[in-house]
Amino acid sequence: MKPEEVWDPRGLRLRQVRDRLHESRLDALLVSHLPSIRWLTGFTGSSAFLLVEPGSATLITDFRYRTQAAEEVGDAISVRITGSDLFAELALCLEEGDSGPRAGFEDHNLSVRDRRALGECCGGVMWEAAGPLMDALRSAKDSSEIESIARAVQVAERALVEWLGAVREGASERELAAELVYRLHLAGSESMPFDPIVASGPRSALPHAHPGERRLREGDLLLVDFGARVEGYCSDMTRMFVLGSPAAWQVEIYRVVSRAVESAIEATEAGVPARSVDGAARDVITGAGFGDRFGHGTGHGVGLEVHERPSVNARSRDTLESGNVVTIEPAVYLPGRGGVRLEEVVVAEEGGRRVLTTFPRDLKEL
Amino acid sequence: MKPEEVWDPRGLRLRQVRDRLHESRLDALLVSHLPSIRWLTGFTGSSAFLLVEPGSATLITDFRYRTQAAEEVGDAISVRITGSDLFAELALCLEEGDSGPRAGFEDHNLSVRDRRALGECCGGVMWEAAGPLMDALRSAKDSSEIESIARAVQVAERALVEWLGAVREGASERELAAELVYRLHLAGSESMPFDPIVASGPRSALPHAHPGERRLREGDLLLVDFGARVEGYCSDMTRMFVLGSPAAWQVEIYRVVSRAVESAIEATEAGVPARSVDGAARDVITGAGFGDRFGHGTGHGVGLEVHERPSVNARSRDTLESGNVVTIEPAVYLPGRGGVRLEEVVVAEEGGRRVLTTFPRDLKEL
Repeated sequence: MKPEEVWDPRGLRLRQVRDRLHESRLDALLVSHLPSIRWLTGFTGSSAFLLVEPGSATLITDFRYRTQAAEEVGDAISVRITGSDLFAELALCLEEGDSGPRAGFEDHNLSVRDRRALGECCGGVMWEAAGPLMDALRSAKDSSEIESIARAVQVAERALVEWLGAVREGASERELAAELVYRLHLAGSESMPFDPIVASGPRSALPHAHPGERRLREGDLLLVDFGARVEGYCSDMTRMFVLGSPAAWQVEIYRVVSRAVESAIEATEAGVPARSVDGAARDVITGAGFGDRFGHGTGHGVGLEVHERPSVNARSRDTLESGNVVTIEPAVYLPGRGGVRLEEVVVAEEGGRRVLTTFPRDLKEL
Repeated sequence: MKPEEVWDPRGLRLRQVRDRLHESRLDALLVSHLPSIRWLTGFTGSSAFLLVEPGSATLITDFRYRTQAAEEVGDAISVRITGSDLFAELALCLEEGDSGPRAGFEDHNLSVRDRRALGECCGGVMWEAAGPLMDALRSAKDSSEIESIARAVQVAERALVEWLGAVREGASERELAAELVYRLHLAGSESMPFDPIVASGPRSALPHAHPGERRLREGDLLLVDFGARVEGYCSDMTRMFVLGSPAAWQVEIYRVVSRAVESAIEATEAGVPARSVDGAARDVITGAGFGDRFGHGTGHGVGLEVHERPSVNARSRDTLESGNVVTIEPAVYLPGRGGVRLEEVVVAEEGGRRVLTTFPRDLKEL
């Protein structure tokens, strides 16, 4: 048995949450965001609350997940199956529980309507917005989480190699996206973290293009932005190809973006403000005269969610911590002509970084 | 040119929203739920607000969607691209706008944190929870929406036929799910409304099973719950197969569920309480002695979202309207042995119903 199969991180994570609650003078925390529930309990269902109290943790879900919850959730966490709805069961649970009157809730996740339901069903509790408490805990990954993301990168890269065999002139973006999803699944991706973007020719200048009916032609730029999911953890990467020989303008923007990637990777390190990583990429692009052609942030955290903390953009207030896993994805978009985006997955470490993506970043001719 | 390509429903839908605002004494509505934004504007991006005022409608999105928004959104709707964030642009828009001080927001969709941001950025406005105003409007589909759902059913059924050729003893659930997604894409599904459920043997008793490594064996029940998406609209259906000859207990629960489906379909009609459709299915299952083996609701609305109004369960307060499109998906789950679920897509009409799913419902032997 390998060591990582023995160690169960859930006890440590629950202790971290309880420490934060103590600091925030909260007696309990209602976790409603499903990726955070998965992180704390292992539960992968689509409907649940988790109530963390000083002496207990209780997962509340419904009938559909009775068997699954029992299998997935460890001994340290009780499971309650509701006969009606999550709020009613939560009220029962709070009545029987050992916590005081001040409970936190995840205000970035709970809707205004659900917040009202919370007040109505659990009136004896003083509910307080807990802020991004869970997001902050989840953003610094441990080694087993980083290995899961690395495996999700490997699965994505294996699928990309297989997929390149199917790329040919005349194929539509939609067909190519279908081929890519198929190969991602066969390579071991549990699900799609997001629908792959396959954008060709002028459509590569649309930062979030849906794959469409456009068919590949000689001279096209081909952008593919995709990821895999392994043990719940996501990868997210972008590579560029060109059908035939690239035109001078394609090579020019490709080189600028490639230098921006290198500069941002060099800047990634624990202790550094995330906005300075954005600045490192943006300065290269602005210096080359394309500053107004790169309108989005340089990257984002990736983990159980494909977009999570920290933000890597000019307005980010996050400081990189050791174990943060972020994408670096600068771009130059020339509307009507085409765009280049390259995207890497990078782990911030003390005094450096580790790049998880390994597929060559050059503008490969197909 | 076909008539449905000429008629643009967006003007009518905006008028319906404005009528509801007038009834609710609201001067404007902030629409934040993306499927509702798509329904009103055609915009398919992943980040936007829509502000509906008496004399104008404004879509606010970011740089990434500049080109796409211009293409997708009709002339009746202005587009504003934010240089910072949606809230700041919304504040500018409200300052310049023609509406009074009372504005509604979608409280089922807006998080507590975003509600606070709304108060901070747009302080001159009195924000009020608008309730499920948009959901109610969207739940009664027009004929072009029903035809889109019908096409999504057809795509799903074509893929199912193709997929059955790949089902054989020894294949894993995960491989079979990958094959199904591939065929759904090739058949014309724009994306997956949800990850298909492929559950075999005892795992068919898990109502929301993830496809796993279990391999198909002689005598297994095989449950497949999947859908397609066409023009944004979803289908959602479930069929059962058995590898080889079914055992007596498999035939027994299959027959019970099949009768429950027929009974619920018969009960589906405009003007009827949705909970009585649930009751029609549940009575059959309870009468057969399996009442405690059917723990979820009978169905849900389907449209631009795979789960939307109306709810078809015992606690539903919805009354079916003409044009509601709902799933009917009763089940019997025998833990450790296996389960049977069958799922149809049905349109409620005046004095009757139309069943959109056409794939035979019998327990097909493979």
